Amino acid sequence: MNLETLHQKLEVYIEQQEFKGSPVELYRPVNYILRLGGKRIRPLILLLSAQSFHAKIETALPVAFVMELFHNFTLVHDDIMDNARLRRGQATVHEKYGNNTAILSGDVMMIWCYKYLLDLPDNKFKKIIHLFNDTAIKVCEGQQMDMDFETKANVFEEEYLKMIEYKTSALLACCFKAGALLGDASNEDALMMYEFGRNIGLSFQLLDDLLDAFGQVEKVGKIKGGDIQNHKKTLLLIKTLSLTPPSQQSVLNAYFQDSSKVSVSEILQIMEDCGAKKYVEEKASAFHHKALEQLHLLRDVSDENKKILSDFVNQLIQREM
Amino acid sequence: MNLETLHQKLEVYIEQQEFKGSPVELYRPVNYILRLGGKRIRPLILLLSAQSFHAKIETALPVAFVMELFHNFTLVHDDIMDNARLRRGQATVHEKYGNNTAILSGDVMMIWCYKYLLDLPDNKFKKIIHLFNDTAIKVCEGQQMDMDFETKANVFEEEYLKMIEYKTSALLACCFKAGALLGDASNEDALMMYEFGRNIGLSFQLLDDLLDAFGQVEKVGKIKGGDIQNHKKTLLLIKTLSLTPPSQQSVLNAYFQDSSKVSVSEILQIMEDCGAKKYVEEKASAFHHKALEQLHLLRDVSDENKKILSDFVNQLIQREM
Repeated sequence: MNLETLHQKLEVYIEQQEFKGSPVELYRPVNYILRLGGKRIRPLILLLSAQSFHAKIETALPVAFVMELFHNFTLVHDDIMDNARLRRGQATVHEKYGNNTAILSGDVMMIWCYKYLLDLPDNKFKKIIHLFNDTAIKVCEGQQMDMDFETKANVFEEEYLKMIEYKTSALLACCFKAGALLGDASNEDALMMYEFGRNIGLSFQLLDDLLDAFGQVEKVGKIKGGDIQNHKKTLLLIKTLSLTPPSQQSVLNAYFQDSSKVSVSEILQIMEDCGAKKYVEEKASAFHHKALEQLHLLRDVSDENKKILSDFVNQLIQREM
Repeated sequence: MNLETLHQKLEVYIEQQEFKGSPVELYRPVNYILRLGGKRIRPLILLLSAQSFHAKIETALPVAFVMELFHNFTLVHDDIMDNARLRRGQATVHEKYGNNTAILSGDVMMIWCYKYLLDLPDNKFKKIIHLFNDTAIKVCEGQQMDMDFETKANVFEEEYLKMIEYKTSALLACCFKAGALLGDASNEDALMMYEFGRNIGLSFQLLDDLLDAFGQVEKVGKIKGGDIQNHKKTLLLIKTLSLTPPSQQSVLNAYFQDSSKVSVSEILQIMEDCGAKKYVEEKASAFHHKALEQLHLLRDVSDENKKILSDFVNQLIQREM
């Protein structure tokens, strides 16, 4: 099946999973966030991977849904923590239904993930639930690292990469691997799919950071340099701080002491001049390249399916600046 | 083993489960709440039940720990929702570490529950994780019902009983049944243990409500009539509203319009005079009685173990007013 057909089947499946349980106050927010749209990247990855390893779509759809449900659980709780008012252009769950219901609806989404996984066939169940569970722990750990960085004076490149690996890449990698496990993948191929996803995720997040700084508002839908304005310690900023020559260091210091004194454009110029932008671009490109190498090495995936997978991730990654 | 020995082994086990993972900011609150003490009712129930069905303590301890970990996860999130400042006489997790970390540490506790359960022997694993998962969903649903009741004009007896069954009884029942499943219980006995726990839980909560209203501050450690002051729609209040003769109805109305106009003692007197107190006492006693009948009917539990179980629950329930 091509991507479009898979996407259609996924949306039909998600629509069918309306939570009709009681109390409605608990499940209404779950239905709300699941229907806010979004690109469905994670479940689509799972379906594409499952298809590459000849899994039945009927077995893969519930697991794909779990990945979307889990992702949305993290969004609900993260939005409370970030005090975010909008998600996909609409009110966040806690804005619409209050913090308490947002906490609890998030909790129940998380628990329902396992409920779906429990219905997997016995020969698939344990590997997948293990993988999912380890991933879920990583995602929480990554989110905490991200919060800790806000008050940490120095964040090193290695720490930043670990944070984005846990917070973002782990779930993407899990989707690739779970798809493989649902099919007939060898252990080697399943592991390769994990590594493929992990590298793609790292590349994706670094490019997202660049886009946040240098992308155009209309394309990204965010304020230009939102991360910069929030002093977010991305790799771009970490490298800028270490590469900036002393002559320009004072401009950066002035910015961090009083953001109104220096324009975002000036900071962007420094990021470019000192080579930090280029460094992050090359890093992102290296992860992307590594991922594609791993895809190439898969033994039991047809060239056709490799192309579908690489087209999908290339499309994810090659967003316009 | 007697209760004291089991309790000692449990505390040693809990102590050994210190979460040493990183980031410490995520796991420190988990270690904090687990070491605040508490009566360890749920894990002890599980151990007593497991022992009654000849399960090995080494297999039962991790599952007992899961029940305590899950219970503490609900406390961490409930305390945020209730804006509670104290838990077991110490600062609540969100008071000590902030709301964001409390949300996230709660999340990770929940996920670690499954991690522990995944280590169960294959022949036990699926039944227990099913039971645990269905229970976790019920607990969330019960908590949401409880929150909904705050703004609901009329709460009926049946709704209140369902709420406390989900919010409180379900986990106690789960502990009794999980213990049985870890051992060699027949399906009938496992179900009977669930029903035993469910009825004990209902009795326990109704007595807790009575204690909140009529218990002495020194014994309960709460303000006398905290529920009354918060207009909490317990069965005691629900019955009072339906049983109060028109002549006294005006006193209740006055209280709900302006709590300062009527003393808590006056309300307590009305609750007693109209027969609501007696009604709730009898209801609690009926659930207790039903539970003990079910215990009696168990086929494969020795009289000695039945006595240990009934002593434990009687001790739970017979707290002084």
